[in-house]
Order: sequence, then structure tokens, then C-alpha cells
Amino acid sequence: MSDEPRIVIGVDPGTALTGYGIVAQRSASGGLVSLAFGTIATSPRDELPWRVQHIYRELCELIGLHRPAEMAIEKIYFSRNVRSALAVGQARGVALLAAAQAGLAVYEYSPQEIKQAVTAHGQASKEQVQEGVRLLLGLSQVPQPDDAADALAAAICHLQHAPWALRVARVEG
Amino acid sequence: MSDEPRIVIGVDPGTALTGYGIVAQRSASGGLVSLAFGTIATSPRDELPWRVQHIYRELCELIGLHRPAEMAIEKIYFSRNVRSALAVGQARGVALLAAAQAGLAVYEYSPQEIKQAVTAHGQASKEQVQEGVRLLLGLSQVPQPDDAADALAAAICHLQHAPWALRVARVEG
Repeated sequence: MSDEPRIVIGVDPGTALTGYGIVAQRSASGGLVSLAFGTIATSPRDELPWRVQHIYRELCELIGLHRPAEMAIEKIYFSRNVRSALAVGQARGVALLAAAQAGLAVYEYSPQEIKQAVTAHGQASKEQVQEGVRLLLGLSQVPQPDDAADALAAAICHLQHAPWALRVARVEG
Repeated sequence: MSDEPRIVIGVDPGTALTGYGIVAQRSASGGLVSLAFGTIATSPRDELPWRVQHIYRELCELIGLHRPAEMAIEKIYFSRNVRSALAVGQARGVALLAAAQAGLAVYEYSPQEIKQAVTAHGQASKEQVQEGVRLLLGLSQVPQPDDAADALAAAICHLQHAPWALRVARVEG
């Protein structure tokens, strides 16, 4: 097991747009590699049950493909409004379910902890987060859109916070 | 199919407490019968992924057991705060997923529509809603707790609003 990389999926949930970013680290002192990142988009024209099912299925597929053992997700304290908190909550519910069903350990980090992890500055702007993620992952371009960069940042944050020695065994499937 | 009752599951989602109520109607002019009602409770001491998975599994089991073809759920506009909207959203997400996976049609009603349906008064108190549900279902006691009564009320609201002729075929499983 010691030769296997540690793989973490970061998720930035939203009913309209859920960002994801999968980051691997080969050893405790090893560099970080992005395995995949992107967004799962659903349209307000589609029915809500279909939308949450689509997010759930896509996340299950990503987990099945990349086999992360851990999920990192942003802790939410504030939101523009109740409508937006509800939309985040719905997507968050199915993301947590996908993690539970696949046996992933889930870790929550505050927006400040995530920004701090990738920019050394808890109040960093979106552009600074994107650039920090780009540098830490050795990407030639900044990851876009914001939601994908935020998801990658959550995964990086977890890899920096949780001791390698305590990493969760990879999911066997 | 015409001899089969129409069965609706009402859901009042919350991460700590999700109310459910399953109501059947044998014909368009027939009386309403409660098949089951209650709550799915989870503890803040348990991990969040486990909690949403528990809600999801219990709802899937209820759907498998009673075979409703339709789900009625409250539309949310307001909430005490973002934390509470998020907690409702997470449970709502997995409830909608359970419906989508089982092929149920989902209908949303405002709190006013639901109160109006069971008490003829859009601003009814919790006690009035419980008593209205009791009368309409011919129960000897008011259904408790509130979350179960609210879920039954949502199911009743849907049966009153959606024409019997347009009812969705029962889920085959």
C-alpha cells in the first residue's frame, strides 16, 4: 500500500454547477498531481430530481474511475441567501451520499483554511486561488472555471492538513 | 390499473429530522388513508455522510415498501438562517435523488398551499395543520411529531391539487 499514491477528491457543490478536482500525492513529501478537474453542470430547465441525480451519478463515476479514498469539501457558514444555501445543500447532500456509499472519509474545511492552504492568505481573491492552485499542481494554465479551481484547492488543503501517516486506505471496488 | 389506489409520499426534509407521510386514495372521490408516517432521525454526533446516507436509505426502503408513484415536498423560500437552509438542502437533495432513482414524479408546494389544503387557511398554526391532517385522514389522534404531520399534509395537498386523471402510473419494481 505504501507505493500507492494518496488520492483526494475535492468538491465544490452547487445545484447548477458542482466543481470537482482530483489530486494525487505519491509520498508525504511528494509533489501534487492533478488527475482530473472540471464541473458538473445542470440546467434550471431540467427537473430538480433529475439535476441532483445527474450530479450524484457523475460524482459516483469520478470516484469509481479515480478511486480517491478521501473527499474534501468546503464548510459553509455564509451564503448570499437562503435560495443559494438550499441549492448548495441539495448538491452537497448527494455529494456526501456518493462519498458514504463508496466508503470515502469526508473532511470539511472553512473557505479561509482552503485559501490559506493555496495562497498563504485566508482572504485571497478568486484569481489568487486559481494562480495558487496552478503553481502547486504545476499546471501550465490556471484551472477554470472557479468552481473547479475551488474544488482542487479543497483537495490540496486536505493533503496539507491531514498527516500522510493517517491517510485512509484506498477504496477497494 | 384503475383499481389501484393512488399513493403519494410526502416528505419534510431536514438533516436532523426528516418527516415522511404516505397517503393513499382509492378513487378520485375516495377518502384518504394514511399508510405510514413518522420521522427519520439522525444525530449531530454522527458523521454527516452517514447521516445523509441514513436518510436516503430509509426513504428508499419506504418507497420500496409502499410503492408511491408520486412525491410531494415543500418549496422552501425562507429559513431561519443559512445553516438551517443548508441542513434542509442536504436532506432534500437525497430525498429528490431517492425519488428520481425510483422513478417517482416530484411535486413542490409552498407552505401556504399545504396549509390551505389541510385547514382552508394559508397561515394556519402547527396545531391547526395537525388537526386538519387528523380529520382528513380519519385518525383518532393527531399525527406527531410536527415533521410527520407536515409530510402528510404535503401528500394530502398534492392529492387535492393534481387531477386524479393525470396520476402517474404506480412504480413497478
